[in-house]
Amino acid sequence: IKAAGLKLQLCTNETQATRENFVRKLRALGFDISVAEVTAPAPAACRLLKERGLRPHLLVHDDLIPEFAEVDKTNPNCVVLGDAAENFTYANLNEAFRLLIGMEKPILISLGKGRYYKETDGLKLDVGAYMKALEYACDVQAEVVGKPAKSFFESALAELGVPPEQAIMIGDDIVSDVGGAQQCGMRALQVRTGKYRPSDENHPEVKPDAYVNNLAEAVDIILQHL
Amino acid sequence: IKAAGLKLQLCTNETQATRENFVRKLRALGFDISVAEVTAPAPAACRLLKERGLRPHLLVHDDLIPEFAEVDKTNPNCVVLGDAAENFTYANLNEAFRLLIGMEKPILISLGKGRYYKETDGLKLDVGAYMKALEYACDVQAEVVGKPAKSFFESALAELGVPPEQAIMIGDDIVSDVGGAQQCGMRALQVRTGKYRPSDENHPEVKPDAYVNNLAEAVDIILQHL
Repeated sequence: IKAAGLKLQLCTNETQATRENFVRKLRALGFDISVAEVTAPAPAACRLLKERGLRPHLLVHDDLIPEFAEVDKTNPNCVVLGDAAENFTYANLNEAFRLLIGMEKPILISLGKGRYYKETDGLKLDVGAYMKALEYACDVQAEVVGKPAKSFFESALAELGVPPEQAIMIGDDIVSDVGGAQQCGMRALQVRTGKYRPSDENHPEVKPDAYVNNLAEAVDIILQHL
Repeated sequence: IKAAGLKLQLCTNETQATRENFVRKLRALGFDISVAEVTAPAPAACRLLKERGLRPHLLVHDDLIPEFAEVDKTNPNCVVLGDAAENFTYANLNEAFRLLIGMEKPILISLGKGRYYKETDGLKLDVGAYMKALEYACDVQAEVVGKPAKSFFESALAELGVPPEQAIMIGDDIVSDVGGAQQCGMRALQVRTGKYRPSDENHPEVKPDAYVNNLAEAVDIILQHL
């Protein structure tokens, strides 16, 4: 993609690590990627917090905390929820809840709304499940930063400096990747790998512009159409 | 109430203790109550499990487990969720989730759907919040046993042996107590104590038949109308 002169941006909902760590992992796998080429929920949340003068209480993974180093976290007036994994303890969830319910108008910012994901030791509840728990308890609607939020794709496009109709999204998640990109005016391919399931092809609301068997095939097709 | 010859049944969503322990606490506070006079979610769930041949995986408070002593819990084909408190760990929630998502048709039975409650050390997320988390992750709707479920009030009425129009509910929860009882055809008083909030008097959906300042006033009014 890069050798053909096309612009590339990675859109990830990864909230268990800083972009630096995420890029380090990709580089170790042989991908030539820099931090500037990654659009991730935490920096998007930081921009939103600054714009609105919000001071977060963080319920996130320990490894994500450095992304919020520059943000004022004293006397919190909102809660930022990420995939906190082992930090999703009963005590931490009650603490986040108490802060929210004590606010005149509770503000809950969620770094994604995934339902679950798979790790080597099995399926895990993702941030979206805990978001729903806090939404229900506080009778509030979370503001979701990350895919499939339109603003998230827009900020990736802004990084690229291209309009949506000149961009194409490739992803394995029918709703977050394909649906989100299409709502933003982009075309979207679904790869038949990763979290793809055959039942995705009968999804009631989202239909990709095309299916590809894997990422390499997606790249081949894009280059053929240049 | 009892001295006047009226029948009495306590309807509680308590799921942190067996009825035996609940009654012991009330008796220590001077209330002459027996286990048979208590309608609680766990025994209602046990009846439901037996009727439908369900074998539960329990995510409940340790002190509630004896209520399920007679129930077959091998090779679970449903999950029963109570206010598990300290048992609401990341590992336990993932375990319940994995069992559910692995079922052809996930069955989640929730002992109540309260949003939160207050203890001496502060507000705590109640079972309803965790129910919402699992519902979202598994794309399933929980079956709620306990207030405000109609079947729960019906089983209390069956214990009393009276039709709903001859029964009156007294409670502090506008939705679970008052709304639930009214949907079952009973009249309902809201006490202005406990979790009552002045904003309850503007509730968009539920309106009690009357307000009383406390339980004693409710009893006085009922006895005056005999």
